[in-house]
Amino acid sequence: MTANETANRRYDILFEPVKIGPVTTRNRFYQVPHCSGMGHRYPEADLYMRQMKAEGGWGVVSTQETEIHPSSDISPSNQGRIWDDRDAERLKELTEAVHERGSLAAIQLVHNGIHTANRLTRIAPYGPSDMVVDVEDPVQARAMDKSDIAAFRQWHRDAALRAKRAGFDIIYVYAGHDMTLLQHFLLKRHNSRTDEYGGSFENRLRLFREVLADTRDAVGDRCAVAVRFAVEELLGADGLQHDGEGRDVVAALADEPDLWDVNLSNWSNDSQTARFSQEGFQEEYVSFVKKLTTKPVVGVGRYTSPDAMVRAIKTGVLDLIGAARPSISDPFLPKKIEEGRIDDIRECIGCNICTASDNTVVPLRCTQNPTIGEEWRKGWHPEIVPPLARPQSVLVIGGGPAGLEAARALTQRGAEVTVAEASREWGGRVTKEARLPGLATWARVRDWRMNQLRQAPNVELYLDSPLTADDVLSYGIQHVAIATGARWRTDGVGRTHRSPLPFLNGDAVVGVDALLGEGASALVNDGPVVVFDDDRYYMASVLAEMIALSGRKVTFVTPASIVAPWTEHTLEQRRVQTRLIDLGIDIIPLHQLSGLTQSVLTIECIYSGRKREIACAAVVPVTARLPSDRLWHELAAVSDGWADHGIETVERIGDCLAPGIIAAANYAGHFYARKLARAIVDGCDAYR
Amino acid sequence: MTANETANRRYDILFEPVKIGPVTTRNRFYQVPHCSGMGHRYPEADLYMRQMKAEGGWGVVSTQETEIHPSSDISPSNQGRIWDDRDAERLKELTEAVHERGSLAAIQLVHNGIHTANRLTRIAPYGPSDMVVDVEDPVQARAMDKSDIAAFRQWHRDAALRAKRAGFDIIYVYAGHDMTLLQHFLLKRHNSRTDEYGGSFENRLRLFREVLADTRDAVGDRCAVAVRFAVEELLGADGLQHDGEGRDVVAALADEPDLWDVNLSNWSNDSQTARFSQEGFQEEYVSFVKKLTTKPVVGVGRYTSPDAMVRAIKTGVLDLIGAARPSISDPFLPKKIEEGRIDDIRECIGCNICTASDNTVVPLRCTQNPTIGEEWRKGWHPEIVPPLARPQSVLVIGGGPAGLEAARALTQRGAEVTVAEASREWGGRVTKEARLPGLATWARVRDWRMNQLRQAPNVELYLDSPLTADDVLSYGIQHVAIATGARWRTDGVGRTHRSPLPFLNGDAVVGVDALLGEGASALVNDGPVVVFDDDRYYMASVLAEMIALSGRKVTFVTPASIVAPWTEHTLEQRRVQTRLIDLGIDIIPLHQLSGLTQSVLTIECIYSGRKREIACAAVVPVTARLPSDRLWHELAAVSDGWADHGIETVERIGDCLAPGIIAAANYAGHFYARKLARAIVDGCDAYR
Repeated sequence: MTANETANRRYDILFEPVKIGPVTTRNRFYQVPHCSGMGHRYPEADLYMRQMKAEGGWGVVSTQETEIHPSSDISPSNQGRIWDDRDAERLKELTEAVHERGSLAAIQLVHNGIHTANRLTRIAPYGPSDMVVDVEDPVQARAMDKSDIAAFRQWHRDAALRAKRAGFDIIYVYAGHDMTLLQHFLLKRHNSRTDEYGGSFENRLRLFREVLADTRDAVGDRCAVAVRFAVEELLGADGLQHDGEGRDVVAALADEPDLWDVNLSNWSNDSQTARFSQEGFQEEYVSFVKKLTTKPVVGVGRYTSPDAMVRAIKTGVLDLIGAARPSISDPFLPKKIEEGRIDDIRECIGCNICTASDNTVVPLRCTQNPTIGEEWRKGWHPEIVPPLARPQSVLVIGGGPAGLEAARALTQRGAEVTVAEASREWGGRVTKEARLPGLATWARVRDWRMNQLRQAPNVELYLDSPLTADDVLSYGIQHVAIATGARWRTDGVGRTHRSPLPFLNGDAVVGVDALLGEGASALVNDGPVVVFDDDRYYMASVLAEMIALSGRKVTFVTPASIVAPWTEHTLEQRRVQTRLIDLGIDIIPLHQLSGLTQSVLTIECIYSGRKREIACAAVVPVTARLPSDRLWHELAAVSDGWADHGIETVERIGDCLAPGIIAAANYAGHFYARKLARAIVDGCDAYR
Repeated sequence: MTANETANRRYDILFEPVKIGPVTTRNRFYQVPHCSGMGHRYPEADLYMRQMKAEGGWGVVSTQETEIHPSSDISPSNQGRIWDDRDAERLKELTEAVHERGSLAAIQLVHNGIHTANRLTRIAPYGPSDMVVDVEDPVQARAMDKSDIAAFRQWHRDAALRAKRAGFDIIYVYAGHDMTLLQHFLLKRHNSRTDEYGGSFENRLRLFREVLADTRDAVGDRCAVAVRFAVEELLGADGLQHDGEGRDVVAALADEPDLWDVNLSNWSNDSQTARFSQEGFQEEYVSFVKKLTTKPVVGVGRYTSPDAMVRAIKTGVLDLIGAARPSISDPFLPKKIEEGRIDDIRECIGCNICTASDNTVVPLRCTQNPTIGEEWRKGWHPEIVPPLARPQSVLVIGGGPAGLEAARALTQRGAEVTVAEASREWGGRVTKEARLPGLATWARVRDWRMNQLRQAPNVELYLDSPLTADDVLSYGIQHVAIATGARWRTDGVGRTHRSPLPFLNGDAVVGVDALLGEGASALVNDGPVVVFDDDRYYMASVLAEMIALSGRKVTFVTPASIVAPWTEHTLEQRRVQTRLIDLGIDIIPLHQLSGLTQSVLTIECIYSGRKREIACAAVVPVTARLPSDRLWHELAAVSDGWADHGIETVERIGDCLAPGIIAAANYAGHFYARKLARAIVDGCDAYR
């Protein structure tokens, strides 16, 4: 018995079929509903992405939330829609594609209740009571009267029937994430009705129970009816609690659905990043569910380890391993486990660039999987990269995320690849950033690629190998990919200050790169530290955390109104700012820099220009980066001589072209590998 | 000579043709490029909206900014696109529709430079120098090298040629709003290049000059080439100034373009609301332009008064009256002036709900014109409402924006209309709010409708007429529209506090309605006032301003991170918060309410829960509203008896169904009138 065969046996339980009402899934891998940023806007793209999950072995593949009616219109977000038969016809193509690949197709019907402003349809939103919606718009929901409730039930029933006709096997009744009308009716804080739909627990549960019964009645003969329900809101007594009404709902409906899909609410609790939670973090909240129902239970928790999955099943926590993010990071995760290729799993790092894509209304992106969202538009497969038509040799300079992904994908294409990294470690920024508080999983970006590269016969890997332009010319390798990364600016230039700040000099100014290299010991001066954040994503907050943990007093100054505003898209902002407050960090928002002497930083209000002074022994400007593109410029200056040295192309990829997030570098590296020596389709269609 | 004829004479100058390079516009009314929230996403809707402007008499009708290449992709915003020939084909339909109605079609080509993250196309943005983009994404632009500059020039040229083939008469070279690559090259703060495209003024101007020449060379034989240029940024020495480099650019390019379209930058300066500017507010900045060029000059300034337009021309400030917002509020403004129907002009109130539509990525909405953005989807014409098939009588209860618009449009349809208003004045909330600082123009919503109604033979108008359910039944009018508005809550319920706050009682709590009714004198207790804003649009800030102006000390507490965050969409936020600071108002963001005694308000940090106390004699909770729907409920309770009294339908419209913005109430009233006694198309298509 080989090691792989032993592994297979250990994980056999994951490949047992599970009966879900009238349908049976081939294994325990269940891609729960998750947003795609494509939905009704890019239906073909959504279809290709979902079918890849089926191909990769997910026994159940679900749509994202799919609006049942124009009164649930969360435009401009690219959710699913099944408003009418035309929508259903497009979804039929999706179910057929999923079925062809041996999987069940599930659809998450939704009415968003007060979680919509109906921006496009201009319909006054529906809610249990008169109240302002929970999105930013100046819009209030109408308290539904009995005829509204009857209409809603009919819409839901009609949508379920359309979904059945579209070929779905599992149809969801959705009361989760504080985003759906059924949950809004259930919650005391949203439901102040005095009729039979408000007041007592059973009254607040009534509509949920009715719609569940309606759905079973409408489609239960052929389709499984699943419930997606938030058992816990992490709001204490103000919300659902897994040992309170969250539990009561499961007890009350027990065996009424064919499947329980249970999780935390709201989305920021359900999809916590690795910075704030560990794999399996929902188990303590959902483990009670199986005790109250005989029906199968699916739950999530960023599972990427087959051992953790097996444990969750064997300990009776779950029947089905739900996944959203791990299935984005690796659509072929089930197949790899089945084939005993555990080390080939491209593990989710828990960074939530995926949620940010949806929140910024574009197709899914992923830090680990550069092909997600590009399956249709660019024809990219996550596991297959077309081989080169004829041999090519490539020198990749720089072993960070862009360089490693380019090299890896190029080995798949059959190129002869050489990777030269100037430093003594692989991974570039990923390696450095993974040492910061909460970001350890980010090293997976490096580790997966290095593992793949170390198995490839057609790559040579060199550390400690800084190259000059003369070196590159002398090697005469056909293609040169320059992936030399970027360095942080220390001159204050970013979004707010567009020109260098002359006063940011001297040893009171400590750059991000110094902190990344040396940790808090880069702060040689004793005394309070000011972190100035104009980058607005994670870096400044993580550095502030690191410095505070080293025992120094930290003040966080930013022209933004909150700490790390872009982390709202990664669902982390509340936790980030709370953590900084808990660490005793003073936060001064809405201020820019105005002056610095040896021990005093002057800042000014971005509105009024009013100045104030802060005692400070060190300032850390976290604002923007500059490409490390010296080598590129040196080579570009002698481009006339490339051909003489046998060099056909020299290109910059990733941060050394334009500094960005790790996902962008990974994508750039992958794109480079895909297009090498190809007449790449560079027309506008590739970008639409 | 009639009064109308005299008026016509006075305004004759507005109807003179103007030669613009090789083309001639029939009059001086020029719809400058403005966003529509439709663009490439809803091209038919955009076309129908633009052609309505041509029908209404605008001599020139422009597209919004139209992206020339996938490297200028401001997804998810619904801008125009002319990436390739397929886009051009769709735009050809637009130019044909505009030409058929006698107008010239203009297109504003754009490359957004650093004002894009290329979210969809994933291309690293292009800029003069390495720098972070000026949108929120963690994305940096690449410094363009010579080959990038050559490529950009080619893209622009190709796009101009496509635009010419699509039939455009005027093609823009756009350097405005701090949103375009050409302006980014021009600005010292964005351009740190050391080659011939950076440094000196002439170097920074080089690319602009080259692209202008390219465009003339490519399309100048048949098309006018217009320049849209920001002469002033209101940034002092940090930006373009109309008596500095803004002027120098006009002097340098003088007669090179066929038309100068000049304005302020950025968008929030160009499209200032009436709260912060007056009609013609740009004249002082742009009046120099005509002195430096022989070519026609168009400018904007929220012109709705033909006298102000005539003055701007006669005093040599402008040749053409540019308009974005006034053309949205009344697409038939030119025609109405031409026909001497000055009082029929539906004047823009300067509220910027239009900019908010674009910023929230939905088709244009307008507080005054409920048909904008609905020309294609619903087939709505701003001036024509189809007559009723047979006579109908309607009782409209409530003379606020919803009721007045319903009544007005119903008179157009030929209904017999009765309007009963309970109070002694028309306009409802609009009348009250127009008394607040900066909102006087909002009364135009009432005034235009009252003027139309007073000319209608088929309406009876009753003030001081509160009605009971028995009254309504006794009248026996076929249709009853209940438009009884809403009242502000005083219990703290809004976005943050979802249940009533028990401590908000007693005479220290002063409601918004009391302040709207009585002004600051509603504050009977002496001492400091806390305005608690969880509404997040304009109301709390305007009340705070009013109270501060009455001499009281004001503290502004909000769970939001800034004052009035939704006013970012109306481009007012910076001015709102600055004004509050200037008035000496203390602003405490990120706090909710926690307790109240006679003289102390306790608030708590929304992140940490940490509490603090504020001395306070009065608290004004500005959080949400409740429908004033008592009459509706009384009538609904006796719905079985409606038919016996000859009543066919009873419906709620506007705030008494679901409180919202004035634009929503106006739309609801209009929609009600359109669908009365019609088998309304209520399928999903009407909402897509």
